Amino acid sequence: MNRNFTEDEIRNTLLEMGEKARIAAHRLAIMSTEEKNDCLRSMADALEAESANLKKENEKDLEAGKKSGLSSAMLDRLALTDKVIISMAKGLRDVADLEDPVGRRLGEWIRPNELDIHKVSVPIGVIAIVYESRPNVTVDAAGLCLKAGNAVILRGGKEAINSNIALAHCMNRAALASGLPEGAVQLIPWTDRIAVDLMLKMDKYIDLVIPRGGESLIRAVVENSTIPVIKHYKGICHVYVDSEADINMALKIVENAKCQRPGTCNAAETLLIHKDIAAKFAPKIADVLEKRKVEMRGDSQFRKLVPEAKPASEEDWSTEYLDLIISIMIVPSLDAAIEHINLYGSKHSDAIVTKNQISAKRFLSEVDSAAVYVNASTRFTDGGEFGMGAEIGISTDKLHARGPMGLAELTSYKYIIYGNGQCRE
Amino acid sequence: MNRNFTEDEIRNTLLEMGEKARIAAHRLAIMSTEEKNDCLRSMADALEAESANLKKENEKDLEAGKKSGLSSAMLDRLALTDKVIISMAKGLRDVADLEDPVGRRLGEWIRPNELDIHKVSVPIGVIAIVYESRPNVTVDAAGLCLKAGNAVILRGGKEAINSNIALAHCMNRAALASGLPEGAVQLIPWTDRIAVDLMLKMDKYIDLVIPRGGESLIRAVVENSTIPVIKHYKGICHVYVDSEADINMALKIVENAKCQRPGTCNAAETLLIHKDIAAKFAPKIADVLEKRKVEMRGDSQFRKLVPEAKPASEEDWSTEYLDLIISIMIVPSLDAAIEHINLYGSKHSDAIVTKNQISAKRFLSEVDSAAVYVNASTRFTDGGEFGMGAEIGISTDKLHARGPMGLAELTSYKYIIYGNGQCRE
Repeated sequence: MNRNFTEDEIRNTLLEMGEKARIAAHRLAIMSTEEKNDCLRSMADALEAESANLKKENEKDLEAGKKSGLSSAMLDRLALTDKVIISMAKGLRDVADLEDPVGRRLGEWIRPNELDIHKVSVPIGVIAIVYESRPNVTVDAAGLCLKAGNAVILRGGKEAINSNIALAHCMNRAALASGLPEGAVQLIPWTDRIAVDLMLKMDKYIDLVIPRGGESLIRAVVENSTIPVIKHYKGICHVYVDSEADINMALKIVENAKCQRPGTCNAAETLLIHKDIAAKFAPKIADVLEKRKVEMRGDSQFRKLVPEAKPASEEDWSTEYLDLIISIMIVPSLDAAIEHINLYGSKHSDAIVTKNQISAKRFLSEVDSAAVYVNASTRFTDGGEFGMGAEIGISTDKLHARGPMGLAELTSYKYIIYGNGQCRE
Repeated sequence: MNRNFTEDEIRNTLLEMGEKARIAAHRLAIMSTEEKNDCLRSMADALEAESANLKKENEKDLEAGKKSGLSSAMLDRLALTDKVIISMAKGLRDVADLEDPVGRRLGEWIRPNELDIHKVSVPIGVIAIVYESRPNVTVDAAGLCLKAGNAVILRGGKEAINSNIALAHCMNRAALASGLPEGAVQLIPWTDRIAVDLMLKMDKYIDLVIPRGGESLIRAVVENSTIPVIKHYKGICHVYVDSEADINMALKIVENAKCQRPGTCNAAETLLIHKDIAAKFAPKIADVLEKRKVEMRGDSQFRKLVPEAKPASEEDWSTEYLDLIISIMIVPSLDAAIEHINLYGSKHSDAIVTKNQISAKRFLSEVDSAAVYVNASTRFTDGGEFGMGAEIGISTDKLHARGPMGLAELTSYKYIIYGNGQCRE
């Protein structure tokens, strides 16, 4: 797409988009809940009404993807079928039904000098989303950002460019007709690197960047951005089976955490087993994992108990397989388990299985991760499962948002202060 | 100091410091409030007990500063007098007396599947503070970070290097003796640029960077950091005198916001006056400002009313004078005032003076700043004045912390989830 555009032209267009987004954000911030919901519902209606055109544009991406040799799994994720379009539209309507995160009273207090201070949630402003192939992110991200009163600048992957442009146009037309300010939803039409790099310096206009995709995409965003970034690089989640675990519960939790959907960031990658329960537990979990066709990579102690396991290398402890592979270590103590997780983990989601409340408490307080579980699968780290309604992503950062990011995490706050002439002495 | 060190040596030392800080942070996170307070009080005692040595080391910086031609104002800020040392020690004791921000219950809910989710405040982890000349930041920042359970890596300016090293050693000796883990308070002994640039890439070890100083320092940190940064570039604060203002109140608020301490970020830099009150208000405020020796830079309409004002240029509207200078504009409407502030302001602190509640409400909701005031001086944007007890800085960002950053803003949170064997379906 950019063959005919110089870097200056791209830069100028991006700056115009930024300026438009900034102005739109000021208007969005004072829109009522009903006005925002009307826009979201119109967008949903428009996606369904224009599904033929969306599928036609998507077909171009699918054709190009086949030519360039995308795997069938990738083509599958790229396809805008009727089912996908209906599900995106439902997503927007669901977001309309969620509570408005703007205007929450986060605190109120009166100072001795009678200054009356109110801390109130407000939109963040302008949010940029940088993502890879799946076109449904275009719709989901726009819906969540809008509901929280934010203007959004979208930059999807090149595989889905025609689909994304069609989706953004469709949503925009509908939303503008329902009163959304121009510039509230914008898509960057260039998919090459230079457009992202230029955007990532626009801290004058953009308040937050959320990258969604593989580690290299996220790393590139972090290294180039002068705008705050919220992200998660990867999910290296652990299940630790304590010496006092309920063995049947532990078997189920490990199986679920590893196998229920291995390609997700909250799936377990490493199993830690306390030495005192290993002789009993190791053969049983090996049976379960073998039945589920999970490749086991164990340390030397685990392999003494389960000789068919492959040896784990040092890299295995920090590898996110996203696949039916699990690394397994026998640990001498709870302390060793906690230390291992804090060293090799990714601060995402980690679980202990134990009946001992003191061990549970120590694990929950000492493991430095966004979500720490006792006696449950790591797979629950998810906006929907947490009851947030929807999520725009999961953060393994510790600033602003940690864990699933729902609508509340797409807001900031301001201090509103009522005086009667107070001056500082 | 770095003449004898290669870049690799500096890098390796910094990485060791990062690793130490990370380990210390895990221990700090589980220290009790009393343990942390004991450390803070020992640090305060040690500063007072070792004041002779601190003053001796400070004398080296003062000598070097005189030779290099520092202004007397800068030498004044650099000096560790008995009064300054006592005040730093008192600051640490005051922080010990504040409520522990760690372990607050931010939310608790039970899901339909009986997962019991608790959202609890936890330390951020490792915080780096990059600052300029004033050595008291070394003590204030360390105290606040420790109280919130964070390890801190300090990097002060070269003017104060001997003072900072002495302060950090003194605090560290005392705190280690009281049970603080090694690595909880560390000072980078190199003051040249390369050490900062290397540190700003250590996102594996450091969770947050807070730069404190002039705009160019902060800009350099933002451009080079792969670690999240919380900052404020500058404070371009406005007072808007509405057509329905109480004129006497407006005179006092403008005088206070501009003159009470013009070198602070929450001092007013621009006065906006509604056209309908300008004829009455302009001559009166001109009298007040002239008496206080404030240089006025007005737009053409203000200069018609106050001919002795100098003309304001376009740059004046986005200049932080930090001095007895004020830019003044007559605006046609509340809308114009809001638009001006959102365009030229720095999202810091802005005030409206009005008796009209509808205008006040619109200003408070539409001005996109950290603190918005009705009928009070902008000078109140301050951790102490807000009742936070102390502040580590003021944020004009919208992520994580906005406005004054107290102890609560130096924490993150985690989700602690109690299950009874739940697996995801």
